[in-house]
Amino acid sequence: MARTIDWVRGGIELIDQTRLPDELVVLRIDDVPALVSAIQRLAVRGAPALGVAGGFGVVLAVGSPEFEASVDSLRAARPTAVNLARMVDRVAARAGDGFDAALAEAIAVRDEEIDASRQMGTRGMELVRELAGNRRVRAMTICNTGGLATVERGTALAVVRTLFEEGRLEETIVLETRPLLQGSRLTTWELREMGAPHRLIVDAAAPTLLASATADVVVTGADRIAANGDTANKIGTFALALAARYADVPFVVVAPESTIDMATATGADIEIEERAEDEVVSFRDRRVAPPGTPAANPAFDVTPHELITALVTERRTVRFADGERL
Amino acid sequence: MARTIDWVRGGIELIDQTRLPDELVVLRIDDVPALVSAIQRLAVRGAPALGVAGGFGVVLAVGSPEFEASVDSLRAARPTAVNLARMVDRVAARAGDGFDAALAEAIAVRDEEIDASRQMGTRGMELVRELAGNRRVRAMTICNTGGLATVERGTALAVVRTLFEEGRLEETIVLETRPLLQGSRLTTWELREMGAPHRLIVDAAAPTLLASATADVVVTGADRIAANGDTANKIGTFALALAARYADVPFVVVAPESTIDMATATGADIEIEERAEDEVVSFRDRRVAPPGTPAANPAFDVTPHELITALVTERRTVRFADGERL
Repeated sequence: MARTIDWVRGGIELIDQTRLPDELVVLRIDDVPALVSAIQRLAVRGAPALGVAGGFGVVLAVGSPEFEASVDSLRAARPTAVNLARMVDRVAARAGDGFDAALAEAIAVRDEEIDASRQMGTRGMELVRELAGNRRVRAMTICNTGGLATVERGTALAVVRTLFEEGRLEETIVLETRPLLQGSRLTTWELREMGAPHRLIVDAAAPTLLASATADVVVTGADRIAANGDTANKIGTFALALAARYADVPFVVVAPESTIDMATATGADIEIEERAEDEVVSFRDRRVAPPGTPAANPAFDVTPHELITALVTERRTVRFADGERL
Repeated sequence: MARTIDWVRGGIELIDQTRLPDELVVLRIDDVPALVSAIQRLAVRGAPALGVAGGFGVVLAVGSPEFEASVDSLRAARPTAVNLARMVDRVAARAGDGFDAALAEAIAVRDEEIDASRQMGTRGMELVRELAGNRRVRAMTICNTGGLATVERGTALAVVRTLFEEGRLEETIVLETRPLLQGSRLTTWELREMGAPHRLIVDAAAPTLLASATADVVVTGADRIAANGDTANKIGTFALALAARYADVPFVVVAPESTIDMATATGADIEIEERAEDEVVSFRDRRVAPPGTPAANPAFDVTPHELITALVTERRTVRFADGERL
C-alpha cells in the first residue's frame, strides 16, 4: 500500500499508525463507527489525512437510515483540525446525488491532497532556499507531517522530502512529540524509509539546539489556521516558535489551503482538544507517575502569527514576517 | 530513612531514584566505584545531593592507596553540576588530617545543605509573595528539585513545600521532564507524599499553559550558575524561561550558593553533559523509535540571565530583572 489512506474495493484501507514503528498494519474499515474509533485513537491522524478519512467516511454512510447521525459523529470525532469537518461537509453535500457522486467527491478530496502535497514540497523548498541560502539545509520539525499525515508525501515533511530528493538536505532534527511520540514513532520511520539523515531529540532540547545554530529552518504543519494567521498545531509548536524567534531561525508553517479557516478570527477562537490524562501518566500501558496522578493534556497549542515567518500552501507563500496576510 | 542521602554506620545510604515511583529502595554504598556508578546512572542526582554524595565519597577513599584516582573519578562522574567537584575538593582538602577530619567536613557539607534548603524555602516564599501578591499561588516547576535532589526539602521545591505548609499554595504544575521523567517519577511522588495538589504535563505543554495564565510563577533549580547569572539547568528550562517571559510570568531560580561558579564567566563557558542516545529512543526500557535511530541528548541547557526574574539562595535574593547582579 503506497498511500496512508485510500478507498479500496468499496471500503477504507488505512495504515494503523498506533502500531508503528513496530509493525506496518493496514486496517480495513467498512462502517462509520469503526472509522470514528480509528480517528479518536489516532490510528489515522494528521489534518489532511483526517479530511480524506472524513470524506470517505461519508461515502460509507450514504444510503444508511442513520446518515445524518453518522455525518455528525464524523464531524465531531476530533475538534481541532478544521479539515475533518470541512471535508465531511463537502462530501455530505453531494450525498443527495447518490453513492457515485459522493464517492467521486471523496476521491477528488484525496487527489487534491496528493497534488497539494507535491505543490507544498516544491513551494516550500523554494522558500527555504530564499530564507536559508543556497546550501544544504538542516531542518527541524515536530510531530509527523509526512505521508502518514496526508495521503502521500505530507506537508512540512514534504518540504523535507523534496529537499532530500534535490540533494539539498543536510539533516533533519526530529522532536519526539510527547505524549504520543509521533516524531519518534512516525517521522523517524518515514525518514528512515527515504534514507534521509536525521537525529531524534526530546521536545525540550529544541530551544537550546536552535540557540546553538544546529538548524537553519523550522518547518511544521498545522491543524487549523485562523484568519489572522494564528496557527493551531501539535502541542510544543508554540515553544518551538518562541525559541526560533529568540535564535533568529526562520519558522515556516506548511499546510494545505483546506487548513485555513477564515471563519475563525484569531487563535483565541480555536477549540483545543483536551485528551485523556492517561496519555501523560503512562506510555503504552507502562505507568510512569504514581497511581492517581492528575494531569492536564492539551493536544494542541496556538502559535501567534507574529512568530511565524511564512505560511506555505499548495497555492501561495504568505510571508507574515514581511507584513503579508491571508 | 528521612534523608535522601546520609552517612550511616561507616558508609553511604541513599534512595535509589531510578526505582521511584514504583518502589522506595535504599542503596548501601561502601566504595567509590559503586558511588560513581550510582551517580552516573542517576540513582542519586540533583546538584546539592551530588555535592553531598561527592563529599561522603571522598571519606570512603581516605587512607586508600588510590585516593587521588578516586577523588578524580568522583570529580568527573558528571560534568555540569559544579557542586560535585566543589564538595569533592573541599572534603579532599581535609583528608590529609585523617578520616575523622574528612568525615566532619562531609557532615558539615550535609548539614549546610539541610540548613540551606530551609532558608531557600522561606526566602523563596517571601519573594513569591512579593512577585505574585498575597494570594494562594499556582507554581510551575521542572525536573525534581525537592528533598530527593538535596538532603531534605530541596531548592525550588522547598519553596513549593514552604508555600504549602503556610497554606499559600493553590496548585503545582509539574513538567514531566523527558527523557528521564524526574518530574513525573519524583516530583509528583514528593508532592503526593506531602499531600499538595498538583497536575502533571508534558514539557511541551508548559508554554501554552503559561500563556493562558495557568501559573503565577515558575520556580526551577540550577546545576551551575555563571558569574553573569546565566544558569545551566535540566534540559527544558530555557524553553520554560522563554515562555514565562512571553507570558509575563515571573521566572525564579532557587539554588544554594554552592551552585554559583564565579570562575565561569557566562553560560557559554559551561560544559553541557551529552548523555546516551538510548535515553531518547526509549521510554523507560521500551523502545519507541525504529532500531538504530540516532539521537542527540543534551542533558542541560543554559538560560540567559536576562530571562531570569530573580535568583534565591540561602543567603540572598538577587533580582536580575531589577539590574541586580551576583
